[in-house]
Amino acid sequence: MVRWAPNARGRLEQAALELFGERGYDATTVKEIAERAGLTERTFFRHFADKREVLFGGTTLQDGLVGTLAEIPEDTAPLAAVAATLEAAGELFDGRRDLVRQRQALIAAHPELQERELIKLATLGSALAAALRERGIAEPAASLAAEAGMAVFKVAFERWLEDAEEQAFTQHLRDGFAGLKTLTAGA
Amino acid sequence: MVRWAPNARGRLEQAALELFGERGYDATTVKEIAERAGLTERTFFRHFADKREVLFGGTTLQDGLVGTLAEIPEDTAPLAAVAATLEAAGELFDGRRDLVRQRQALIAAHPELQERELIKLATLGSALAAALRERGIAEPAASLAAEAGMAVFKVAFERWLEDAEEQAFTQHLRDGFAGLKTLTAGA
Repeated sequence: MVRWAPNARGRLEQAALELFGERGYDATTVKEIAERAGLTERTFFRHFADKREVLFGGTTLQDGLVGTLAEIPEDTAPLAAVAATLEAAGELFDGRRDLVRQRQALIAAHPELQERELIKLATLGSALAAALRERGIAEPAASLAAEAGMAVFKVAFERWLEDAEEQAFTQHLRDGFAGLKTLTAGA
Repeated sequence: MVRWAPNARGRLEQAALELFGERGYDATTVKEIAERAGLTERTFFRHFADKREVLFGGTTLQDGLVGTLAEIPEDTAPLAAVAATLEAAGELFDGRRDLVRQRQALIAAHPELQERELIKLATLGSALAAALRERGIAEPAASLAAEAGMAVFKVAFERWLEDAEEQAFTQHLRDGFAGLKTLTAGA
């Protein structure tokens, strides 16, 4: 019988962050994460390939963003479509700033996690470029819009994490796109 | 006695690419690379920390770009300064397209090399942002200009590698910055 596990993924992510904080990333096992979440190891591996992946949400962010982009009207300018798409990530971030900060501190302390994070971001940029091409945007505009969007996303994310005034991620993202426009106009 | 080794670094890079192509990356040893270059293992390790690093040129690119940026007039607009800096990389690429293509094919085939490449690019973006702050550019403009520049660099580099017409890297880079300006104006 399969145990009913509402939001198993979220519970596993939360349990992993707690344990990584208490015992350290290296010392924590998948078994312990599953136990803390009140789930089995088998359930863990149904959601995540390994201990590292629990910090990277599987393909949730990428699937969410590509799905969002598909719903934006086709006549929206490429970079505006990317900006609107990335704003959807705000829903995943705002209200979870402390958890995201914990996660980023862990990543900063473990080179293997930094590598995974960079690969995730690069894959996300490629996925956005592919989704733009499917909307009929030609290269190099598709890749430029996707990569420039990821550049703004990266800067906005760092500023959102460090923001003492705790402004919403969306605000930092909008400031970033406005800043990019000013920079390119002046170059 | 130290053996006179003009351009030891370049000879090691060339020997490594030859051997990786002939025998595969995994099967090639540092000893074999040094022998092919007519140098000792000790000389190899004076230039590179390990076999992987021989593909990433130590800190040559980063030092070169940060040095170039320092020589650009202070009143140059941030993104224009980044563009001019990244053009300097063209000198490292043009005339070596076949070698760079060999290198990229190797990287594409080895996840551990892809991770290293992404870390190098991320580090380069951070170094450019730091160099812009030293020129008095405030945040987030410094990080935005650096990351947007790296986004254009990445797209230009991919297009330069695949370009059947073999246009110069500088041309692809200029097209990229012009394309970014068009995209931001329309967003």
